[in-house]
Amino acid sequence: MEEERKTSKMGFDVLEINRWVVCCFIGIFTGLIACFIDIVIEIVAGIKYKVIKENIDKSTEGGGLSISLVLWAALNAAFVMFGSFMVAFIEPAAAGSGIPQIKCYLNGVKVPHVVRLKTLAVKVFGVLFSVVGGLAVGKEGPMIHSGAVIAAGISQGRTSTLKKDFKIFEYFRRDTEKRDFVSAGAAAGVSAAFGAPVGGVLFSLEEGASFWNQMLTWRIFFASMISTFTLNFVLSAYRGKPGDLSNPGLINFGQFQSEAIQYNWYEIPIFICMGVIGGILGALFNGLNYWLTLFRIRYIHHPCLQVIEATLVGAATATVSFVMIYAMYTYDCQPIAEDPVKYPLQLFCPDGEYNAMATAFFNTPESSVRSLFHDPSGSYNPLTLGLFTLSYFILACWTYGLAVSSGIFIPSLLIGSAWGRLFGIFLSTVTRGSTWADPGKYALMGAAAQLGGIVRMTLSLTVIMVEATGNVTYGLPIMLVLMTAKIIGDFFIEGLYDIHIKLQSVPFLGWEPPGTSHSLTAREVMSYPVTCFKRLEKVGRIVEILSDTSTNHNGFPVPEEDNVGRLCGLILRSQLIVLLKHKVFVERANTNLTQRKLQLKDFRDAYPRFPPIQSIHVSQDEQNCTVDLTEFMNPTPYSVPGVMMIAVQSIPNRGPLLVLKLTLTVYTVVSFVKLKSV
Amino acid sequence: MEEERKTSKMGFDVLEINRWVVCCFIGIFTGLIACFIDIVIEIVAGIKYKVIKENIDKSTEGGGLSISLVLWAALNAAFVMFGSFMVAFIEPAAAGSGIPQIKCYLNGVKVPHVVRLKTLAVKVFGVLFSVVGGLAVGKEGPMIHSGAVIAAGISQGRTSTLKKDFKIFEYFRRDTEKRDFVSAGAAAGVSAAFGAPVGGVLFSLEEGASFWNQMLTWRIFFASMISTFTLNFVLSAYRGKPGDLSNPGLINFGQFQSEAIQYNWYEIPIFICMGVIGGILGALFNGLNYWLTLFRIRYIHHPCLQVIEATLVGAATATVSFVMIYAMYTYDCQPIAEDPVKYPLQLFCPDGEYNAMATAFFNTPESSVRSLFHDPSGSYNPLTLGLFTLSYFILACWTYGLAVSSGIFIPSLLIGSAWGRLFGIFLSTVTRGSTWADPGKYALMGAAAQLGGIVRMTLSLTVIMVEATGNVTYGLPIMLVLMTAKIIGDFFIEGLYDIHIKLQSVPFLGWEPPGTSHSLTAREVMSYPVTCFKRLEKVGRIVEILSDTSTNHNGFPVPEEDNVGRLCGLILRSQLIVLLKHKVFVERANTNLTQRKLQLKDFRDAYPRFPPIQSIHVSQDEQNCTVDLTEFMNPTPYSVPGVMMIAVQSIPNRGPLLVLKLTLTVYTVVSFVKLKSV
Repeated sequence: MEEERKTSKMGFDVLEINRWVVCCFIGIFTGLIACFIDIVIEIVAGIKYKVIKENIDKSTEGGGLSISLVLWAALNAAFVMFGSFMVAFIEPAAAGSGIPQIKCYLNGVKVPHVVRLKTLAVKVFGVLFSVVGGLAVGKEGPMIHSGAVIAAGISQGRTSTLKKDFKIFEYFRRDTEKRDFVSAGAAAGVSAAFGAPVGGVLFSLEEGASFWNQMLTWRIFFASMISTFTLNFVLSAYRGKPGDLSNPGLINFGQFQSEAIQYNWYEIPIFICMGVIGGILGALFNGLNYWLTLFRIRYIHHPCLQVIEATLVGAATATVSFVMIYAMYTYDCQPIAEDPVKYPLQLFCPDGEYNAMATAFFNTPESSVRSLFHDPSGSYNPLTLGLFTLSYFILACWTYGLAVSSGIFIPSLLIGSAWGRLFGIFLSTVTRGSTWADPGKYALMGAAAQLGGIVRMTLSLTVIMVEATGNVTYGLPIMLVLMTAKIIGDFFIEGLYDIHIKLQSVPFLGWEPPGTSHSLTAREVMSYPVTCFKRLEKVGRIVEILSDTSTNHNGFPVPEEDNVGRLCGLILRSQLIVLLKHKVFVERANTNLTQRKLQLKDFRDAYPRFPPIQSIHVSQDEQNCTVDLTEFMNPTPYSVPGVMMIAVQSIPNRGPLLVLKLTLTVYTVVSFVKLKSV
Repeated sequence: MEEERKTSKMGFDVLEINRWVVCCFIGIFTGLIACFIDIVIEIVAGIKYKVIKENIDKSTEGGGLSISLVLWAALNAAFVMFGSFMVAFIEPAAAGSGIPQIKCYLNGVKVPHVVRLKTLAVKVFGVLFSVVGGLAVGKEGPMIHSGAVIAAGISQGRTSTLKKDFKIFEYFRRDTEKRDFVSAGAAAGVSAAFGAPVGGVLFSLEEGASFWNQMLTWRIFFASMISTFTLNFVLSAYRGKPGDLSNPGLINFGQFQSEAIQYNWYEIPIFICMGVIGGILGALFNGLNYWLTLFRIRYIHHPCLQVIEATLVGAATATVSFVMIYAMYTYDCQPIAEDPVKYPLQLFCPDGEYNAMATAFFNTPESSVRSLFHDPSGSYNPLTLGLFTLSYFILACWTYGLAVSSGIFIPSLLIGSAWGRLFGIFLSTVTRGSTWADPGKYALMGAAAQLGGIVRMTLSLTVIMVEATGNVTYGLPIMLVLMTAKIIGDFFIEGLYDIHIKLQSVPFLGWEPPGTSHSLTAREVMSYPVTCFKRLEKVGRIVEILSDTSTNHNGFPVPEEDNVGRLCGLILRSQLIVLLKHKVFVERANTNLTQRKLQLKDFRDAYPRFPPIQSIHVSQDEQNCTVDLTEFMNPTPYSVPGVMMIAVQSIPNRGPLLVLKLTLTVYTVVSFVKLKSV
């Protein structure tokens, strides 16, 4: 509170400047991490593809393609095994894209280990291994998590992984401040991943915001801008054109020129149909992944098994790719275009032509997406696209949820652009090659539909897609497609992130209250009888209540002495722990003159890992001492009458409010922490 | 409340669908209005420029240029007089850009007449006249107001100007719903004006949001998208290229190709310097306009005087333009480029060349801005730019605040791009023609700096500028320039909109609490003694209190019967008025069986123009009746303890909260209405 009051009207005092400095650093470091991932993957994957390509080229002439297959599968499996080993044994919190965890964190739930430096290291190296290992994953999702960890680390000015405290930014060691910075980090991550600074801001707001705070939003935007600029600058310099600034994100959809690929208003219903398909396919994906994840939770929980499964998937992906490429060699040979693919596989195609299936499979998924968007009509044969969609769908579904660091954005886009392009070819055939049925445009819409059908994000995803496309003209159709995909998908099953949040049993507060809670009043959801503390409370009772699992609350009301029904303050578990640890007892204050007064600093130093009550030793003597809570409790907590209907009231504030006179359940404290923390 | 509870979990019930339908119509009509304005101005201004050009061309050869001047001045003055007449005599609420009024409205303050159909009509025709009349105004600002009026009209399903009630959307007749739609309308207006749908959403959020509501934001975005699409579609069709979709907004900055006009990191400090200049010039503009507005409030309040002043400014603008063009005829003749200006004035220039000053003055301001951004180096001579900046600065400053419908965006951009280009030329000279000092790029930064220095918007303006530029690469420098301009400008004086809001004495709640309120508690800002009503209150007392100007509150607490200190509900002035009007008295309930029960519909029908208490007749007999407030009051209002510090608490919620046990001042009710309305 003190700091906030220091903030002058102009808003340019030290604290505010420091917030901007932190956001600037968040942007720079997030951008640099993205560059690092991009460059390393480019180099290592380049070597891998070169080695395999040489081997395949040799085998095509001399025979022994089965050895090429084994080489490919073994290389991939080895990379994936390393990546999976790190995740499974060193830091399981680094698994997956991390977006569900960040959603939870921004929602006010503390997921253990989610913003630690160790998690960041495992995440970054894990994603290198899994992408180089050829899994059906992207490097974009993990950037959001990486940005969030960077933000948490920088803003707190210390790392518990390295046990180092830089003694800076100490006043940011509170839940609200830290969460604000983590939002900025997540936004910077989105911005670096997709070159979408506005999309990043909207992502953070959509996932984390209850209130709209102008200065905070402005800072988040700043971090996003710095992040995409850093990435752009470094990557452009690395590629030899320092001033070019044409790499705003890790994935770049390439320029859609509105003159070349325009759409007509009568195509909009067609796009909406694609949204329907995307919604259904997305729901199918999520449903399959749900059952798979249930299976994994039940049977594959030992780290060794997780590593074995991941390695298996790595080998299987290579095998499927190889079989597909091999199977199509007689069907789909394409002449090498002016803008050639990076690693064209000739196989048994005539000289000057290459295998089209290999463009999709023998390539990083990012380049495959770009080819599907921009290659001229006729570059792909429908059978190739159909088989690719089917096999990649299954592979991506199998891959998500493995103990590897991986993103779902790019696989979704790839599946969607494949069937979207197929749809475009089909339309073009039906309308006998009408000029408007450009397959690239339909690939884009398919990609949007599939991604929307899987993740079910709305506003932020539209803006991300528009920014990555670099063309605002596509805004309306992309929006309609995403909307349709969400509506249709929601009809069957929840979004993939929400499924995984539920499966991890996180008490997540959604935007809408549950359907059954519509007529619940605050009084009904709260536990009874109320666990209160008096202003002057016995140490013994505090220890007893904090240790008791049945009163496992995070905050306790303090009623007035003479009128138990009236609230006069709220004391948090964490504050009580600090008070007990420092033995701030009324009896000691007089006897022990050397004891210094407890300061805000002591609470900050303990943040965020307050010790459990069990670790605090309280002697028999001390049990009878008293603690004066008056100056530590929050004297003005938010409160509502017990008869307030929580579902209706919760809409603006996202989640039930703190209730007067009634004890806080864990569920409420979660929302309370969002609302205002000490 | 009832309706909200009806909303199913899926969110696709009738009410929700209707909200989307309304947003769709808001987008369509806003887009159509923008098209109408654009096309009419194009045609009429085209005729005007043609007539004057022919006259000037003739006079140049045959002599008598003074007659051309008189013709030009008289034409302009006539147009402006018409426009001003409409505004001054028919609907003064249509004056200016309407952005300050919309800011107030979104902030929860009801500005009289601001969202009426009559205001819209005067606004639209007024802006036609003032733009055609050649004033230093833009047609973009008024679009935001127009969108807001359209939204209010459509969502309420009735118009009080035409006294027509369509009996649809009756459940949207409440403050919260209406304000949500008005946000969407304002966003649609921004979107149509600048082709910036995301910027529009952020504008609405920045100006109006306290809470972040996902579905609402999504709907606002939908309205914005539809609006820019409608405009784009209709304008493209009008210009003969229906599928082209290259007119997303009224103003289009033209494509900045990053390959052609790239910037280097070491230019960023230079851009920041431009931000400083923009901040200073913006503050100067605002300061001058502040004194001018004070003068106008004091001396020019009669409509006739207002019309005379506006006519005078119209004539003066034409004269200044003419003198400038004439004065420069020997200094700055430019060859007609490949992409010629629309109405080149040859004057005394050699054949095949035209007067460069005329590009800036003898043209719609939108095309002048585009020329300054994109014309190749050397198209303008520094003296021309300097004189133009100076004269246009004075004209724009004099114009803003006149009784005409006008926007400040385009004049600001024009002033900024002129001195920005001058700055670019200066840099290019200093660095001896270094390739990076492209004047167009500096014109863009100057435009951003000047606009930022005047209006002081942050996030939304950055996004609007980036979207209008169509190039995300410029995001970071534009953001830094706007930030610098705001910081520097705020050091001297407030933003132009805030100045005008203050001068109109609107109780506007800013983002930050006033500096002096930092240690105020809720108890201190509330009036005492408390004006309460009992659950069963005498009619006489209600009438007396509502009529008394010293208790001119909008809401009254209802304490518990047995414990006056405890709040049990809140009743609004508007509800009491409806109760009195329908004579819902306890004594009547038994005697008069025919009287039907008061329903939600009765409150809706009275919304939003509840009659004043003076117009309600209460007989002597009725004075002694009682009203039972129990079922009409809000039983669960938000409340905070009296000792809560309002400044600190107000930050997340924007403005002080409702305070327990203390009477609501008007100031608080404003914020209360924002928080939750009945």
